Amino acid sequence: MNQFQEDTIVALATPNGIGAIGVIRLSGPEAIQIINAVFKGKDLSKQATHTLHFGTIKDGANIVDEVLVSLFIAPQSYTKENVVEISCHGSSYIIDNIIKLLIKQGARLAKPGEFTLRAFLNGGLDLSQAEAVADLIASNSKASHQLAMQQMRGGFSNELKILREQLIHFASMIELELDFSEEDVEFANRDDLRRLISNLQSIISNLIRSFDLGNVIKNGVPVVIAGKPNVGKSTLLNALLNEERAIVSEIAGTTRDTVEDEITIKGVRFRFIDTAGIRETQDIIEAKGVERTFEKIKSSAIVLYLFDPSETQEEELSKIIQDLKAVTEENNSTLLVVSNKSDIHPLATENTGVLEISAKEKLNLEKLEQALLAAVNLNQLNSDEVIISNIRHLEALKKTDEALNRVLYGIDNPITSDFLALDIKQALHYLGEIVGTVTTDDLLDNIFSKFCIGK
Amino acid sequence: MNQFQEDTIVALATPNGIGAIGVIRLSGPEAIQIINAVFKGKDLSKQATHTLHFGTIKDGANIVDEVLVSLFIAPQSYTKENVVEISCHGSSYIIDNIIKLLIKQGARLAKPGEFTLRAFLNGGLDLSQAEAVADLIASNSKASHQLAMQQMRGGFSNELKILREQLIHFASMIELELDFSEEDVEFANRDDLRRLISNLQSIISNLIRSFDLGNVIKNGVPVVIAGKPNVGKSTLLNALLNEERAIVSEIAGTTRDTVEDEITIKGVRFRFIDTAGIRETQDIIEAKGVERTFEKIKSSAIVLYLFDPSETQEEELSKIIQDLKAVTEENNSTLLVVSNKSDIHPLATENTGVLEISAKEKLNLEKLEQALLAAVNLNQLNSDEVIISNIRHLEALKKTDEALNRVLYGIDNPITSDFLALDIKQALHYLGEIVGTVTTDDLLDNIFSKFCIGK
Repeated sequence: MNQFQEDTIVALATPNGIGAIGVIRLSGPEAIQIINAVFKGKDLSKQATHTLHFGTIKDGANIVDEVLVSLFIAPQSYTKENVVEISCHGSSYIIDNIIKLLIKQGARLAKPGEFTLRAFLNGGLDLSQAEAVADLIASNSKASHQLAMQQMRGGFSNELKILREQLIHFASMIELELDFSEEDVEFANRDDLRRLISNLQSIISNLIRSFDLGNVIKNGVPVVIAGKPNVGKSTLLNALLNEERAIVSEIAGTTRDTVEDEITIKGVRFRFIDTAGIRETQDIIEAKGVERTFEKIKSSAIVLYLFDPSETQEEELSKIIQDLKAVTEENNSTLLVVSNKSDIHPLATENTGVLEISAKEKLNLEKLEQALLAAVNLNQLNSDEVIISNIRHLEALKKTDEALNRVLYGIDNPITSDFLALDIKQALHYLGEIVGTVTTDDLLDNIFSKFCIGK
Repeated sequence: MNQFQEDTIVALATPNGIGAIGVIRLSGPEAIQIINAVFKGKDLSKQATHTLHFGTIKDGANIVDEVLVSLFIAPQSYTKENVVEISCHGSSYIIDNIIKLLIKQGARLAKPGEFTLRAFLNGGLDLSQAEAVADLIASNSKASHQLAMQQMRGGFSNELKILREQLIHFASMIELELDFSEEDVEFANRDDLRRLISNLQSIISNLIRSFDLGNVIKNGVPVVIAGKPNVGKSTLLNALLNEERAIVSEIAGTTRDTVEDEITIKGVRFRFIDTAGIRETQDIIEAKGVERTFEKIKSSAIVLYLFDPSETQEEELSKIIQDLKAVTEENNSTLLVVSNKSDIHPLATENTGVLEISAKEKLNLEKLEQALLAAVNLNQLNSDEVIISNIRHLEALKKTDEALNRVLYGIDNPITSDFLALDIKQALHYLGEIVGTVTTDDLLDNIFSKFCIGK
């Protein structure tokens, strides 16, 4: 697997569309020969790495474009191969024609993610770092960006590397015991091994637990917004959304899509999910239509229950809150009870745990935002602790944990060293899957096909 | 006007959207200091021009991205100023944040076309070349690309330069005469001047005449497709369009829009304009609704009249053809009379001038394409002759021509040298407007505001 690729790939690396410039990327052993065959200017085969050269691309006698060529000579490049980047005018016609010309000279159109795949295969990145490249490109909030950046720069990989090295040490000790199996010696101290494994398992369980946070940061924190009709749910959403829009300074040419019902608060993205339920009936558990609401509530990290104090009886309210509390507690999610229209109808008593706002008058919205943020464990995000956000990593960590449980069982029970060695190897295998020391073609296809072309 | 700008501008140079990479461009005296303040890696102020540097962009302690920085040190750059290009991951979030960071360090967001404006102001391009940059980016066919490329590389400017130099020579001779006006000498030989001017005017009138071709190449050749309803107009359009789609090889990631009713034949773009007219009435000139059809016909380069031989009486046909001939001849456009459904109804007689096709069976479509191409003067395009395509240039050339007429009149009539000098200067003024030796802020605003940001 870890061999250099024989062919040279080409793709547009910048977004499709009209712009000032477009960048076409070539990678592979023939990259420099291929560009040299169509480039009029200096002889590119004689230039140093990390240099830029102005010239023209010619198709026979016709000038296709005036371009700037960047040279990266192996192994000093992203893919560790020879890489050429051609910066041309941003016209689809020109880009098409340059790519066709390079293909005619022997390059092949790259598949999605193939440049990063090569970077991985050639040892420039491990697999979890390669996956982070795609996350980084897709990142749309400060928190998701921070997560991807940490992973791309190897924070997660380093943590795993230390674990693996310790485990490999024990595996080799136990292998050694197998060689001396007649003599019944113990090179690997069982107490030390038990300590190491419990240490490993505590780190792994921290990582596994971090997935909930990592996942919501990557995909947005799901917030179910529940309440009777006309209680002001959409007014509240719009008020929060407008506040965000006012903060986002627009840089011409880089307008970011603000997705309806997605709101970024202090760098964390929240996805608001409206529900139809909790309205017509007071006995919410029995009502048929409300079942689906509870399905949504179960898949959310926060439940925001909005009510109008003028139209809600105290008894009814406490019943609903009680029911929602039960669901959210079982579900390990956060319940926020919010009284709307507080400008007209302030609550009679200081009802602890109820947040009074006015969506219309934009009163106390900041308190609500703080409550939403508080529901996400941001301390963990802001510390240097590693957070995982990839379900593939979660699965591999769970399998590692199971294998380690078998090792522990093996230590405490009359099992021969060879079985112990097998379970340790299994744990190493799953850890290896994360960083890509163990891979299959299917796995790689699955990961890299989700990349954009040109990356 | 020809002074270096004092501030440093920044913009995204690649199209907006998600891609593998985005390129942010900085230009101005502080470009290198500004990037250096946020770049962790080598000290960029100590690096050579045309070199590439890997490092990170940091906002305080936070890493915004891992980037590649290209350095172009004045005057060896597009704008002739210090230019820095930052190649980062193609995420809007990252691009926004890097641009904000650079603005915080003292850069200013660039206006549309401002980089090319600076290239012009600093003498890197003349004005007609700068205009060609925008044409090049917008070019979507081989012919329009060729035209823009020729203009950007100075073909047109060189032609004008020679004209201007000769005229300047005479202007200075005549100025000299003014200094010796008491003595009534003639430094500028009037016959030579007359010859030069007639030479100039012949070149100018060639350029003026080339505008029709240049304009249709740039904007597409307008073809009015006329005929009775149900004669197969849309079948014909679709047949031509499908042939084009089959030829255009799709390069993933660079899909070009195929605009409805626009068809590229051998690199020339044709715009097909359907008409409702020439149907209900046989007396086409009198019919009210047909008037608009004739308006369209007048603004087209080619009129394609399609008829069904089984439903058209010979007499009626020859009347229509006669009318259309009159209009197209007056209009200096080309008439193509095409008989559809030739597979079922071949014409009885070898009617010269009528092309028999079958849109449905795709018979003789290639002959039709050849006829369309023949109607465009491609010989002129394929020779090295300069073709103009910009209406601003056309107007300036016409005004130059008028001024030269006044010079000629002045030579042949008792007019003092100072008036002659004035008219020559006027001609020089208009020629100067084209290449930008004479400009106003309004003119520049008008030209560069049509550019995209980042160019």
